[in-house]
Amino acid sequence: MPATVTLLIEPLPADASVDDLERTFREVDQAEPALRVGELSTQRGDGIFETIGVVDGHAQEVRPHLERLRNSARICDLPEPNLVQWEAAIATALARIPATGEFGIKLVLSRGVEHGPAPTAWLAASPVADQSGPREQGIRAVTLDRGYDRGAAERAPWLLLGAKTLSYAVNMAAIREAKRRGADDAVFVSADGYVMEGPTSSVILRRGGVYSTPAPSGAILHGTTQQSLFEHLAAIGGQVEYRDIPVADLRSADAAWLVSSVRLAAGITALDDRPMPYDAAETAAFNAYLLTPRD
Amino acid sequence: MPATVTLLIEPLPADASVDDLERTFREVDQAEPALRVGELSTQRGDGIFETIGVVDGHAQEVRPHLERLRNSARICDLPEPNLVQWEAAIATALARIPATGEFGIKLVLSRGVEHGPAPTAWLAASPVADQSGPREQGIRAVTLDRGYDRGAAERAPWLLLGAKTLSYAVNMAAIREAKRRGADDAVFVSADGYVMEGPTSSVILRRGGVYSTPAPSGAILHGTTQQSLFEHLAAIGGQVEYRDIPVADLRSADAAWLVSSVRLAAGITALDDRPMPYDAAETAAFNAYLLTPRD
Repeated sequence: MPATVTLLIEPLPADASVDDLERTFREVDQAEPALRVGELSTQRGDGIFETIGVVDGHAQEVRPHLERLRNSARICDLPEPNLVQWEAAIATALARIPATGEFGIKLVLSRGVEHGPAPTAWLAASPVADQSGPREQGIRAVTLDRGYDRGAAERAPWLLLGAKTLSYAVNMAAIREAKRRGADDAVFVSADGYVMEGPTSSVILRRGGVYSTPAPSGAILHGTTQQSLFEHLAAIGGQVEYRDIPVADLRSADAAWLVSSVRLAAGITALDDRPMPYDAAETAAFNAYLLTPRD
Repeated sequence: MPATVTLLIEPLPADASVDDLERTFREVDQAEPALRVGELSTQRGDGIFETIGVVDGHAQEVRPHLERLRNSARICDLPEPNLVQWEAAIATALARIPATGEFGIKLVLSRGVEHGPAPTAWLAASPVADQSGPREQGIRAVTLDRGYDRGAAERAPWLLLGAKTLSYAVNMAAIREAKRRGADDAVFVSADGYVMEGPTSSVILRRGGVYSTPAPSGAILHGTTQQSLFEHLAAIGGQVEYRDIPVADLRSADAAWLVSSVRLAAGITALDDRPMPYDAAETAAFNAYLLTPRD
């Protein structure tokens, strides 16, 4: 059974109903060329994506990821994705990868080939590298200015701040800058000094027994892992809140995490070279929950 | 002779000297798949590009474009491109397209396939659609907030503002927003109210006989067409200046243009639905100059 599966998908209109969805998928070898150079995803980062974690054959939080894909499409004026088709593609991929272990499934919806008639889409499932380091020992993070104030997204929706677009060069540059500073990851801070998100993760902090994450706004991505964890915390009696978080609140937190679909919960052990309190037991509990099957 | 030529390029280290550079190019059919889905250009808009105009077999301003490609690579921590190899690739493409007419040559340098050993690169030459409309009748533009203040680039180099990256989703969204407002193109304005650039062009305005363009900074791309035109204007006795331009100065200009490598000079006939003075004669002179062979 191959460890990686790549499916090219012929995207259907949102309301199309097709009996045999399998016929709209075509498996390709990831080592073989599958995309044309005219692809707008590659020419202009013009498309959207989602990354879904898979644990022992179960794809986590599929619906929230697909809802976010649909929301990203709306923000980017892309045709509304057919979520039934995407669900079927995920199921097809799951059937073709090993039934145990952790995998990541990346969904990509591109605006298509320039002057082409339709968007292009594909899915790539691949094994997740060992995440025990960040999950168990935590990560060092640095704060990096994102350049935008908190109101930018509402004022200027063409900045696409709430969409998970393929234009991730800045996110990748931020992680390189973090590594240059001897850290592992970054926390974006708004130009007016509020915590936003990591380049590929959401921020959660705990102060005085209350779990906080930045208030949902157009400026940050709604984190599927963060939302799932907050639902879990609320269900077991924890107090959770969405609010504007000045960076000073993060610095003085009792514990803080970056959470994402594949790495899951990584405790922040140092912020801008200053040690942060690290709660190994709670981090382990977070990851135990995040590794259970979730829908 | 085919109207389009696509060359995959095996990127050489900047200091490599190879006798037969042609062997590092491979022509592919643009209708055929040439890139893997693991390409970081397509997954994350993680790469850089240039677009060079070609007029009757002559590629315009090749060296300034290649110098900018090298500068973008530096900002993005990509390996320094081998400019001799890129020059040879451009020459190879020129030899394979018709000797008359206008073409655009797009150069792309991607970080390569994820976990891959090396960057990937390609060049695509294709005919330019008829530009007589924007060149002769001008364009309607709208101002759009870019979200960043003028100091953002210097404060936060990881925003990659001075690099021409493949992460162009916001640039494309700005053009869609302009069209939604009944215009043709956009002028980005900084969060603190200064003129920056168009999504795919530079801004030049004329007031009291002086030609102005925004002062070079890390926040805007240095326009090769703008620089060439300023050199020309200075050579024929014009007064040119680089300065901070409040948006009010653009609104009250005697004439204003968006200039770029393929569309060349397009006069702004209306800004945010208010008519702007349009200088048809000077625009024609600009385009006559820009269509002459330039190095």
